[in-house]
Amino acid sequence: MSHDAETCATHKHGYIADKDRYLARLKKIEGQARGVGRMIDEEKYCIDILTQISALKSALDAVAVGLLQDHLSHCVADAADGGSIDASVAEATAAISRLLKS
Amino acid sequence: MSHDAETCATHKHGYIADKDRYLARLKKIEGQARGVGRMIDEEKYCIDILTQISALKSALDAVAVGLLQDHLSHCVADAADGGSIDASVAEATAAISRLLKS
Amino acid sequence: MSHDAETCATHKHGYIADKDRYLARLKKIEGQARGVGRMIDEEKYCIDILTQISALKSALDAVAVGLLQDHLSHCVADAADGGSIDASVAEATAAISRLLKS
Amino acid sequence: MSHDAETCATHKHGYIADKDRYLARLKKIEGQARGVGRMIDEEKYCIDILTQISALKSALDAVAVGLLQDHLSHCVADAADGGSIDASVAEATAAISRLLKS
Repeated sequence: MSHDAETCATHKHGYIADKDRYLARLKKIEGQARGVGRMIDEEKYCIDILTQISALKSALDAVAVGLLQDHLSHCVADAADGGSIDASVAEATAAISRLLKS
Repeated sequence: MSHDAETCATHKHGYIADKDRYLARLKKIEGQARGVGRMIDEEKYCIDILTQISALKSALDAVAVGLLQDHLSHCVADAADGGSIDASVAEATAAISRLLKS
Repeated sequence: MSHDAETCATHKHGYIADKDRYLARLKKIEGQARGVGRMIDEEKYCIDILTQISALKSALDAVAVGLLQDHLSHCVADAADGGSIDASVAEATAAISRLLKS
Repeated sequence: MSHDAETCATHKHGYIADKDRYLARLKKIEGQARGVGRMIDEEKYCIDILTQISALKSALDAVAVGLLQDHLSHCVADAADGGSIDASVAEATAAISRLLKS
């Protein structure tokens, strides 16, 4: 997961707004994943497990959209100033495309 | 997450094929979620975090599709025998619809 | 798009419930696609075009889930009778997996 | 589909790069939708119809991602200049969120 060509110069400067809230959400997502494992272990009803997996995926999408919003506000805006907007936007839209396929 | 109208009579009898493999996959997914939290904590590059979230969602979809396959093979087939195929299929397709929206 | 190994013996016998309703929905979807083209031609606001594309994708998912429900009720149930349930379910879940990635 | 609060001031000035190519793609998508209708009318094999619907959804995603890329390059960058970057980015990420749910 190395990243050879980071187009965002500001990412070292805390672009993530409200980091604690993200960490709390990821903690909850981790717990949801553990919960799905427990449901499988206890052989809960398959449809109920699928419902939990859908909820987990939606929670991940919400985090991704939030991070993307912070990224666009900071890095893409900075790139616009610096003249490298096209590379920055191409990188962000490639990430969106991967999210849409996942 | 109570489930009032389980249409599958056989789910108590270990319909999940290869349970250990599912548990190992959920363990890995839980670790991936923890890894995303760590990336946010360390303020890794946003695009790299989004790539990891896409991978996590794909891993969840793969588990969901596997569980669904086991469910259709066992519960829907049994329901076909027992005459309650329509309720069973409606329930499974509702779960698929939720997955598609997540 | 040839299909070498159809596992469903009954598909010639009108497994699609309420075909006219499906045809009307596809007619509407075709009109929505034409509408998106027109919006692009008239250079409507990008965000509004994206909203229409989301609506179109949801309409396609709804059709897919409906067809899948008919398929599972008829073909998979028949396969259960005929003993070829595993091949039939594997084929259906592969189609679900493709939908999830699209 | 009225849009009360367009945050992009430049969208009247042909922000869509290579419009003819988009129109050709939408023409093809419209034809694909018509093809799915024909498959249903001729009662083609359900799984084959689902495969075509997946392809159609992927084609729509590709168009959406392309339009989004143009939008971010032009409108969001302009908004960064004009100081309204937050509203513009919030609007774009809301559109992405809708795409992810569709």
